[in-house]
Amino acid sequence: MEPRYVQVNARDNVAIIVNPEGLAAGVAFPSGLALREAVPQAHKVSLRDLEAGECIVRYGEVIGRANRAIPAGFWVREDMLDLPAAPPLDELPLATNVPAPQPALHGYTFDGYCNDDGSVGTKNLLGIATTVQCVAPTVEYAVRRIQAELLPRYPNVDGVVAITHTYGCGVAIDAPGAAVPVQTLRHISLHANLAGLPLVVSLGCEKMQPARLFSSDLPVLGDGPAVIRMQDEELRGFGNIIGAIMRAAEQRLEELNRRRRQTVPASELVVGLQCGGSDAFSGVTCNPAVGYAADLLVRAGATVMFSEVTEVRDAVHLLTPRCATEEVGRALVREMRWYDEYLGRGHADRSANPTPGNKRGGLANVVEKALGSVAKAGSSALAAVASHGEKVMAKGLVFAATPAGDFVCGTQQLASMNMHVFTTGEGSPYGLAMVPVVKVSSRTSLAERWYDLIDVDAGRIATGEATIQDVGRELFQFLLDAASGRRKTWTDHWGLHNALAPFNPGPVT
Amino acid sequence: MEPRYVQVNARDNVAIIVNPEGLAAGVAFPSGLALREAVPQAHKVSLRDLEAGECIVRYGEVIGRANRAIPAGFWVREDMLDLPAAPPLDELPLATNVPAPQPALHGYTFDGYCNDDGSVGTKNLLGIATTVQCVAPTVEYAVRRIQAELLPRYPNVDGVVAITHTYGCGVAIDAPGAAVPVQTLRHISLHANLAGLPLVVSLGCEKMQPARLFSSDLPVLGDGPAVIRMQDEELRGFGNIIGAIMRAAEQRLEELNRRRRQTVPASELVVGLQCGGSDAFSGVTCNPAVGYAADLLVRAGATVMFSEVTEVRDAVHLLTPRCATEEVGRALVREMRWYDEYLGRGHADRSANPTPGNKRGGLANVVEKALGSVAKAGSSALAAVASHGEKVMAKGLVFAATPAGDFVCGTQQLASMNMHVFTTGEGSPYGLAMVPVVKVSSRTSLAERWYDLIDVDAGRIATGEATIQDVGRELFQFLLDAASGRRKTWTDHWGLHNALAPFNPGPVT
Repeated sequence: MEPRYVQVNARDNVAIIVNPEGLAAGVAFPSGLALREAVPQAHKVSLRDLEAGECIVRYGEVIGRANRAIPAGFWVREDMLDLPAAPPLDELPLATNVPAPQPALHGYTFDGYCNDDGSVGTKNLLGIATTVQCVAPTVEYAVRRIQAELLPRYPNVDGVVAITHTYGCGVAIDAPGAAVPVQTLRHISLHANLAGLPLVVSLGCEKMQPARLFSSDLPVLGDGPAVIRMQDEELRGFGNIIGAIMRAAEQRLEELNRRRRQTVPASELVVGLQCGGSDAFSGVTCNPAVGYAADLLVRAGATVMFSEVTEVRDAVHLLTPRCATEEVGRALVREMRWYDEYLGRGHADRSANPTPGNKRGGLANVVEKALGSVAKAGSSALAAVASHGEKVMAKGLVFAATPAGDFVCGTQQLASMNMHVFTTGEGSPYGLAMVPVVKVSSRTSLAERWYDLIDVDAGRIATGEATIQDVGRELFQFLLDAASGRRKTWTDHWGLHNALAPFNPGPVT
Repeated sequence: MEPRYVQVNARDNVAIIVNPEGLAAGVAFPSGLALREAVPQAHKVSLRDLEAGECIVRYGEVIGRANRAIPAGFWVREDMLDLPAAPPLDELPLATNVPAPQPALHGYTFDGYCNDDGSVGTKNLLGIATTVQCVAPTVEYAVRRIQAELLPRYPNVDGVVAITHTYGCGVAIDAPGAAVPVQTLRHISLHANLAGLPLVVSLGCEKMQPARLFSSDLPVLGDGPAVIRMQDEELRGFGNIIGAIMRAAEQRLEELNRRRRQTVPASELVVGLQCGGSDAFSGVTCNPAVGYAADLLVRAGATVMFSEVTEVRDAVHLLTPRCATEEVGRALVREMRWYDEYLGRGHADRSANPTPGNKRGGLANVVEKALGSVAKAGSSALAAVASHGEKVMAKGLVFAATPAGDFVCGTQQLASMNMHVFTTGEGSPYGLAMVPVVKVSSRTSLAERWYDLIDVDAGRIATGEATIQDVGRELFQFLLDAASGRRKTWTDHWGLHNALAPFNPGPVT
């Protein structure tokens, strides 16, 4: 490959190296720039002489100030940048530059499972919700037996999922933060891919009683609540408990097995976007391609969620003008402020992000990471904002507040989504049992190395082999195919399914 | 059964009903007391007329004040008691009444696995530690293959354990609270039952890098660190990653398979005590029996830990005089204060405990629960106090600070213990993969109903069929047998093993 760098914006005074092995000192680019020292792939090179104190600009935005003079052609390392202040939350322009709707897309469909509440599932799963971690091993024992003994007789059912977690007791369940995990687990338990009706296994003495988990309306199976309570007097011994779960499972499997996929418009997709193990390419390749797919989804009438407060915080000034209304803008600011305060209470701040891997992948600080992260949001107006634990019901582009950690963010997005897109630069084997997770790599070298874990390679954008639009359209089609069960993601192929990790900002007792 | 109640202390003005079906109005006890209304099992009856504002006394301690007049023979319900203030932390007597050592017990032994660091294992397990939740499904996939393909060839190895958790990234890893989960996971990863040497699976980009998890000294297998890093350049594809784990596992299994149990003194036991799903019997039957076993263990030179700050807080005035030194007393007070402040930051307090099940089981409030809980600590001097995440190294009776939630407490105790005792009134199927968990019931009715989940029935103490000492000795012998692999706990029989839940008082990002 010829020496190649990517400069995102004409105003940028740094660019990132494309060549997989990095480039050596002395190498000259077609632009005339020559490297004065070796620079690894994805890391930044100075495009011109930078003075100490000068702003370092990428994505057309200030990502830091040079804390020393950096002549042209040098490797701009993270320790050469001072972190700028985050955008002040009181001075943001709200709904001042709302993008006009792009032309609607018609005729795109997928084959999903239509539910009574109007939602559409992308899988047909038996779900077993739990109220407390105490019962998790019992439910997992039952799941193994259901898989071995019952599922083979119900070929139209895609699988059985234990909705286990480390919440439910030993928590301050009336404290302000408790509503977040309770609501998250409620929405996951009533998920579209379970036809909105799980079996429920409760211990009996736990703080998160079934009536609290479901806000009083318990799921009903046959003549009564679909709840097995282990401490019930009539359940004598473990064998009896497992027998009760198996009988309820069989009854529910009979119902689920009668379901068939139906063709529905693409507007029934609720797609959660997330990045994990990001690198300096993420904001140039996979995230913009996902952003283009997000625009296509919005044009088709679907819901697209992006999240991760700490990876949006430093780019929030780019989003508040795009909010559909001032009210949406204020909601976005509210979520940023909540998280600033939450981190402050724990004696942390936004500089706790990025990770060692992000830095190895060329990301100098959280500002550079955030500017790349929000590229996932495409170019549509921001239609709505949801708080932690709230179920997203709006159509269009939605910011759903979550922490940025992959499994915590994924758990919260799962409460609303029926498809998941996950972009990665360093590589992550992350997956979820309840929805297909489509993996998009930022670099071709990762897609080649993890050929049986990465679904879509956006690295071709950096090498010039494909455009952002090409990869965006490919991803859009992949989503329709995977949502229809026609195409399997790699994590579903291997059965790599991460445990749920509900966000609990409240204390444990 | 004749009408029967248990009055713990001569000063008590309430007692709890023993009869499994409860007792009806009009029933008279041998003492002459007659019930004025029906009272369920485990719930409190007033032994004499109580005036409004009068102290209600159980265990010889004030558990609340009557907020109305309660004549003799009435059911004393939780809503009739006002919660008293917690013991003020600045005025506690420290080391003022240190119990003299009881006679040493000699000649008690068990058959364990002797480790290089001097610790003794009670199981011989292959452990696979993880640095971040992203890799958990990959490790679980490998574990299934190891179980199916490798373990049958290594009959002296008891099993393979994936040390998975929801920590490792998306956390403020430099915040003050982060040391707790990192240290907890370090000690669990280096556990005596893994011969102190796990394999380690790391993603590569995570915040909790292997060097941070292990505080620099990585476990060594053969010629190099026992670390498989999924993002390493030489690992091409998922099959390759699994292959690398399988090869390392085989190498480690060869070593583990050569180990044999050796007879060691009972002083090598490190026993964690915990209660979960407690009821009003817990403080009368199972917890005192466990306390007697704790005394035997201390006399035999072993380590016994009790924990659960919020269930000790209201009885701390009974413990500070028993501290071996004033320094130990100050450490105990320090842990109580830390938790008071932690709860306060989350806008909660000690009244977040007890649970709905505790209340159904007759516990009116956290004071009554705590007074019953600390009975587990027996009557020895308190030799040492350990903070959250700290490994317990002292011999004798130790308070190891943990939250009270079962799986969180169990995870923190696991960092130090090689045997676990779990008392329960309402019933819990809780278990751990890495150490045997001996279940002790507070009532015979639970032991009968859950005949294949409860190991030891302490309910016989309430009915008069056994003494506290009888059950304590039975438990002591059970511990020696289970630690030797001669006797299997019910949770190990069924394979009921709860996921780890490290306590993370720091924020997630």
